[in-house]
Amino acid sequence: MTLTSALPTMPTPQDAHTAAAGAAITTAVVGASGFTGALLAELLLRHPGVRLEQASSEQLAGAPVADHLPRLRTPLSFVAPAEVGGVDVAFVCAPHGQAAHVVSRLLDDGARVVDLSADFRLDAASYAQWYRPHPYPELLPLAACGLTELHRKAIAGAALVANPGCYPTAALLGLAPLAPLGLLDVVIDAKSGVSGAGKAPSERTHFCSVDGDLVAYATGGHRHYPEIVAGLAACCGAQAGEGDGAAPGGGGDPPAPSVTFVPHLMPVARGIVATMYARAARLPSAAALRALYDEAYGQEAFVHVSDAPPELKDVLGTNDCRVFATLDERAGRVIVVAAIDNLMKGAAGQAVQNLNVMCGLPEHWGLS
Amino acid sequence: MTLTSALPTMPTPQDAHTAAAGAAITTAVVGASGFTGALLAELLLRHPGVRLEQASSEQLAGAPVADHLPRLRTPLSFVAPAEVGGVDVAFVCAPHGQAAHVVSRLLDDGARVVDLSADFRLDAASYAQWYRPHPYPELLPLAACGLTELHRKAIAGAALVANPGCYPTAALLGLAPLAPLGLLDVVIDAKSGVSGAGKAPSERTHFCSVDGDLVAYATGGHRHYPEIVAGLAACCGAQAGEGDGAAPGGGGDPPAPSVTFVPHLMPVARGIVATMYARAARLPSAAALRALYDEAYGQEAFVHVSDAPPELKDVLGTNDCRVFATLDERAGRVIVVAAIDNLMKGAAGQAVQNLNVMCGLPEHWGLS
Amino acid sequence: MTLTSALPTMPTPQDAHTAAAGAAITTAVVGASGFTGALLAELLLRHPGVRLEQASSEQLAGAPVADHLPRLRTPLSFVAPAEVGGVDVAFVCAPHGQAAHVVSRLLDDGARVVDLSADFRLDAASYAQWYRPHPYPELLPLAACGLTELHRKAIAGAALVANPGCYPTAALLGLAPLAPLGLLDVVIDAKSGVSGAGKAPSERTHFCSVDGDLVAYATGGHRHYPEIVAGLAACCGAQAGEGDGAAPGGGGDPPAPSVTFVPHLMPVARGIVATMYARAARLPSAAALRALYDEAYGQEAFVHVSDAPPELKDVLGTNDCRVFATLDERAGRVIVVAAIDNLMKGAAGQAVQNLNVMCGLPEHWGLS
Amino acid sequence: MTLTSALPTMPTPQDAHTAAAGAAITTAVVGASGFTGALLAELLLRHPGVRLEQASSEQLAGAPVADHLPRLRTPLSFVAPAEVGGVDVAFVCAPHGQAAHVVSRLLDDGARVVDLSADFRLDAASYAQWYRPHPYPELLPLAACGLTELHRKAIAGAALVANPGCYPTAALLGLAPLAPLGLLDVVIDAKSGVSGAGKAPSERTHFCSVDGDLVAYATGGHRHYPEIVAGLAACCGAQAGEGDGAAPGGGGDPPAPSVTFVPHLMPVARGIVATMYARAARLPSAAALRALYDEAYGQEAFVHVSDAPPELKDVLGTNDCRVFATLDERAGRVIVVAAIDNLMKGAAGQAVQNLNVMCGLPEHWGLS
Repeated sequence: MTLTSALPTMPTPQDAHTAAAGAAITTAVVGASGFTGALLAELLLRHPGVRLEQASSEQLAGAPVADHLPRLRTPLSFVAPAEVGGVDVAFVCAPHGQAAHVVSRLLDDGARVVDLSADFRLDAASYAQWYRPHPYPELLPLAACGLTELHRKAIAGAALVANPGCYPTAALLGLAPLAPLGLLDVVIDAKSGVSGAGKAPSERTHFCSVDGDLVAYATGGHRHYPEIVAGLAACCGAQAGEGDGAAPGGGGDPPAPSVTFVPHLMPVARGIVATMYARAARLPSAAALRALYDEAYGQEAFVHVSDAPPELKDVLGTNDCRVFATLDERAGRVIVVAAIDNLMKGAAGQAVQNLNVMCGLPEHWGLS
Repeated sequence: MTLTSALPTMPTPQDAHTAAAGAAITTAVVGASGFTGALLAELLLRHPGVRLEQASSEQLAGAPVADHLPRLRTPLSFVAPAEVGGVDVAFVCAPHGQAAHVVSRLLDDGARVVDLSADFRLDAASYAQWYRPHPYPELLPLAACGLTELHRKAIAGAALVANPGCYPTAALLGLAPLAPLGLLDVVIDAKSGVSGAGKAPSERTHFCSVDGDLVAYATGGHRHYPEIVAGLAACCGAQAGEGDGAAPGGGGDPPAPSVTFVPHLMPVARGIVATMYARAARLPSAAALRALYDEAYGQEAFVHVSDAPPELKDVLGTNDCRVFATLDERAGRVIVVAAIDNLMKGAAGQAVQNLNVMCGLPEHWGLS
Repeated sequence: MTLTSALPTMPTPQDAHTAAAGAAITTAVVGASGFTGALLAELLLRHPGVRLEQASSEQLAGAPVADHLPRLRTPLSFVAPAEVGGVDVAFVCAPHGQAAHVVSRLLDDGARVVDLSADFRLDAASYAQWYRPHPYPELLPLAACGLTELHRKAIAGAALVANPGCYPTAALLGLAPLAPLGLLDVVIDAKSGVSGAGKAPSERTHFCSVDGDLVAYATGGHRHYPEIVAGLAACCGAQAGEGDGAAPGGGGDPPAPSVTFVPHLMPVARGIVATMYARAARLPSAAALRALYDEAYGQEAFVHVSDAPPELKDVLGTNDCRVFATLDERAGRVIVVAAIDNLMKGAAGQAVQNLNVMCGLPEHWGLS
Repeated sequence: MTLTSALPTMPTPQDAHTAAAGAAITTAVVGASGFTGALLAELLLRHPGVRLEQASSEQLAGAPVADHLPRLRTPLSFVAPAEVGGVDVAFVCAPHGQAAHVVSRLLDDGARVVDLSADFRLDAASYAQWYRPHPYPELLPLAACGLTELHRKAIAGAALVANPGCYPTAALLGLAPLAPLGLLDVVIDAKSGVSGAGKAPSERTHFCSVDGDLVAYATGGHRHYPEIVAGLAACCGAQAGEGDGAAPGGGGDPPAPSVTFVPHLMPVARGIVATMYARAARLPSAAALRALYDEAYGQEAFVHVSDAPPELKDVLGTNDCRVFATLDERAGRVIVVAAIDNLMKGAAGQAVQNLNVMCGLPEHWGLS
């Protein structure tokens, strides 16, 4: 048998990578030792259209990346954050507060930047209310919201993309199609895996605390709340970006919907399931409800409308968001369930998706 | 050292058990091989004031109970369900539909009965709507609702107690103190461990399905919904026990609150956390809200008002319900979180608590 | 910025798939609804050099594959097992006993076959001892052992490849490099995730049984034992394939090492960790021990020699085997730890690796 | 019905506790905020024959114990370690190195002491080899080994009991009955839950590290190794307490068996399963093997001989050890599986059992 003679000589992503070495888009990851940064580095190393040139880590500077990411075979070593520069696109996975400084420097260096921190997600007033006064308010107008499906055009031309939080990604993808109904009020009950709390060991992330447990937290207010409120107001054509969005818009704008958001820590490593309960000015028929979602996401590669509540497993390890919507006719509500992998669509995956949009690459490259 | 000489000769529960053999209340468990029945048998075997005389199982009849419950050392063997009889108090852990027949027979036999199925939890109309026409509608008026803290007096004198469902137990204990505020509308987002689905193996309960997953289910209507609606209506003084409770009460009664209930399966073996979002005619101050809960539960042995959202772990293996309530002033809601062990306060533990109430025993006997 | 103009037009695997439609190797999976068959179908659908033409399932025949494998977008529907045929390479994921019949038919049909059952792993005598008399003993000499790294040449030319069991894969990859030392005796303490028990729900695979538990099983003899013994004897140049391998070889052959094998079920969905304790005629130095493993696996794409005991996580979702070996000088033993993903290197992944070897494709295609 | 009139007025443990307040044995726990110390405090608070008078914690001194142990209702507040004193029996849960100083002080204070650290488990030479020179070698001869079933008489009269490590408890209870066979060589493959690593958060105990993982560790030597070797040598009548026990004893003593011990971290919160592989001078029949275990443990309240490998679940939350032994006739070995709850029989439970032995109380008090 000479089956091999019939074989096409197919470049694999790795071959492509090598072949493209001269021409590919150059990238860097600042903060590549945390959960998100490490996954982002992994995705970029496998991406057929870009080259990862630098991965920084304060603690691991000098150490081979492959020691830290044993699945990857890369000759790169971690560099110090200050050494990052000279690349086409830089990803910033620094803690909020620190990130803004890094972003400012990299923009000056000529890079386009995807910031995965919270530093460019809110307007100056909201940022000051939930964090501290913003150190670079003049950069805020540059930042496109990185929820790809809702802001693709702005992302394509942006020098700076503010990759959204994991909870806002799930919540807004789930609720955005309801905007035409005149959203009045939503309750967002979100459940997150432990990786959402980051890699730093703590009593809360100890296996013996989490295993067999589930707990609500931040019932007094979570920092993703203003991001959700502002994003929802924007979807609804209400006053976005001014205050926390709960204030009624002026003039002819509809009022921003009222939002209750309670996150929960659940005993899984990865994933978010957001169950949402929405009241709207108009309650649609079941068919009309489905049509809203099909219209919103029918052409999307990464958002899928489900016929049943999505299981977390269906999205783990993928950049997908699965959304299910149904009527609760007894109570006059729409129930929506959205599921994502918090480290993928909720962070690193969506960052790569944004890179693809920014650079005109096929949106699924490096993500399928 | 002669420390032992100073020792009181203290009877342990086991000694008590033996000593009380002539006088203790006699009990039986019908359906003692499932999760709930087995735990109930275990609790009764350790209970200082009762004696377990019979444990039935269709499949295991004839086999030693200790083979099935390896932690217990009891000489009992399983009997066939039809052989159960001649006891003071019988517990029925049969599937709904079957349970009603067993209950009827045991009442005729002179036993007082705690039924853990759904067969005596609803009025005839609701039961017909969610299950099938009730085979013994004439027995329904005999049944006291077994949510101990809310119906203690009725339970004390009842020949038949309908032990409530696990979700209704958590939901109603969490919401009942809000009734004076004029409840308008509640969303109940409940998360349950896998034991709530019972012991029968299925694709849904396979470890590989559940591990690392969380999924909403029964979004079109769960059979615990009418029980919650009726229970809530009763708390609020609305028309209870007629239809599904969502209909406005006649005359001067306040309307029953509207309810949305979505259960979720989470990757833990035991436990329920219900997060509830309530709107009421009057929004209390934080202090007044706390006072409502302290007043409701300050004297209770098994319901504890928490200062923070309860962790599931704090109630596992206990008959406790932990409740936390807080204001969401931005959205004008009360957020309530209630946690129970679904097999204890949500089933076997509450059944023992009801036994204690029925028989005038200290309510914590056999449960601490 | 016109970054896109610099982009190579790189075919992705999907594009390659389409492009190769005319020329690619055609494949089929018999039994594609179980854990292994479904994963195999997924791997083949993403493989750049082959085309999956048929996926069979007794129960799901007629249903779209994408309903069962929601992550994949394929137009294929399941066919009945008897309809499979006309492909270059067929994979058989049927239960042992049934598989032999399917294999026989497909070989007659002109396909090369990778059998993932146990039906062609043992010689006729061992098969009869551990299962039943073999229905096609005349086919046994055709079967190459599918432990790729140890039998690559035979696989390349084989019409039939017997993909090895998950435990034997981990055990033999871990122990094979020790053969030159004159292995006398090995203890294999293996821990497997629940997917190794298959997809059929049972009391043993119920979440509530497995979660928080670990249990040894088959202490009286597991069917992977004779496969390990025979494989080890072959590595050592002892009498392989005759009896259970424990008998001393005749003539100049060294005796086959004595083997104790105890599997354990652990509370994870996927993965095997085998910890092995070997005594040999000669105890090497630490450096010599390392050299044995580096020599055996230095050129391998999928077997990696670790500096520390491998974590299961490092291999999950990959076709990798990670091996660690160290001296226990106090007791005069070598300790070896091998970790694999039981569904990948232990089943579907190795099957694809064997396909690549059989067809002269790069060994990592479809697996990285 | 007047069932209550027939009721015995049965003291519950709590009532007993109150009644016994004047006469009960007084106790203290040094280091009551870790996993072991907290559980020990809980057990002592429920113990019908003792009174917990002091619970110390460096960090929590002054805080109410009930804030830390929400299941318990005790008026006690944590005290500083230095304040502990004036009790009949003190339990020391301090880190090794620190514990010896606390023990010395408390003995001077007139207390009998159960030390749960490693400080009094080894002879001076072994302690120096595995830890550091012992600060109080003169106290070592006072210490009875706290493996209750093997050293009950010495414990009864001891001023100081060295509660054994969790791994040695499981290993020695499993292997001790084999001593009459002339043990030559044992391999101990032990799997532990994460609580064995203590409460301090670390990368290793992070939920995202442990979940879905299993890893061997300390393959170069674990500090429980010399304890196992010495304990096994003592069982076998070999030279114990001199070096690591692997050296042949002088004179007529049999040589101590050779030991290989590899611990693993598994993804459960609590529990140890030790699978052991023993070669002995004489291989018994199956009946004789069973007889050895029945003879050793037939009268024991907390060690149970199983007919099948024990599941971890069967011992969780109990002070039980379940042991299973079987012949591997093919390889000429005995396979033994022992399961315990590492925090109960492996730590706090056995400490209470030792208290009972020391004070002449029924051995199961406070433990059933």
